[in-house]
Amino acid sequence: MAHVTVSVEYGIHSLLWLVDTHGAAVSSRELAELTGVSPSYVAKILSKLEKAGVVQATEGLRGGYLLAKPPERITFLEIVDAIEGRKPLFDCQEVRTRCPLFGDSPPRWATKGVCSIHAVMLHAEKSMRETLAGYTLADVAKTVGRKAPPQFFDEVQSWIQDRAAARGARQDSNADR
Amino acid sequence: MAHVTVSVEYGIHSLLWLVDTHGAAVSSRELAELTGVSPSYVAKILSKLEKAGVVQATEGLRGGYLLAKPPERITFLEIVDAIEGRKPLFDCQEVRTRCPLFGDSPPRWATKGVCSIHAVMLHAEKSMRETLAGYTLADVAKTVGRKAPPQFFDEVQSWIQDRAAARGARQDSNADR
Repeated sequence: MAHVTVSVEYGIHSLLWLVDTHGAAVSSRELAELTGVSPSYVAKILSKLEKAGVVQATEGLRGGYLLAKPPERITFLEIVDAIEGRKPLFDCQEVRTRCPLFGDSPPRWATKGVCSIHAVMLHAEKSMRETLAGYTLADVAKTVGRKAPPQFFDEVQSWIQDRAAARGARQDSNADR
Repeated sequence: MAHVTVSVEYGIHSLLWLVDTHGAAVSSRELAELTGVSPSYVAKILSKLEKAGVVQATEGLRGGYLLAKPPERITFLEIVDAIEGRKPLFDCQEVRTRCPLFGDSPPRWATKGVCSIHAVMLHAEKSMRETLAGYTLADVAKTVGRKAPPQFFDEVQSWIQDRAAARGARQDSNADR
């Protein structure tokens, strides 16, 4: 019936890795490896999330992305809109004006207000958006947190820091040459 | 964010013209003219609605389409599913299994149950589908009926019958040659 693209999926997974980093930024390379896609793809998604004020980018060797606000204040609706753009569920073509009995000028009664079919679709869209607005990144992070063993998130942070340090060391060594 | 295609719009408008025809079938040619698209396009949409048990086709010179059941029993959800197929809102790629810390075999805690992100999307989809299931063709026909002047629907039925009769007469005359 409808479709939320895979970019949203990678976007939310990336954002989940930015919860509880103890202030450390995570680069798009690490996020790409953590989600199993290319760094350029992740960077494209994160750039949209940055424009929407969901993440902030930091520069430098240890640069990368941080959440721009607490995960309790980042809703699924905000993430979906940031990545997908705000496309309507239904794009009304005003078919109601085309009845051949109207000739070239449909009467006022036929065009007044929102088309009744469109109104139903707007209601369905509102229901979906309200549900998405009711979940935050923190909600899902908590669910994942309950599933994972306690040491898992520390292991992930160590992995991220080791990777960033190794990259920094490689770049330092290149600069020394 | 998501999209219900224009075929659904033409489908619902076509179905609205099949409410209160006093038992007379309406051909895809007349439905095409009433909705402003090609007869082949309307026929393709109606063929899906026929397969789903929403309309029934009748054969012969005065053949065409009738609602297969009362409009009070035809929901928007049923129409959308018939025309679009039942595509999910979100197509989970199980990104959660890709964490490089898992190596080749993600642990059971990471793959147990539905992915938490997917669960939110399923809830959003359910909200949308429940809203669509709450509206029937009769609801919208009543709204249109309240807007239109009382004689309008009789005029439409006359127009449809005149068109069908004219086509019948042309075919009779061709058969006489």
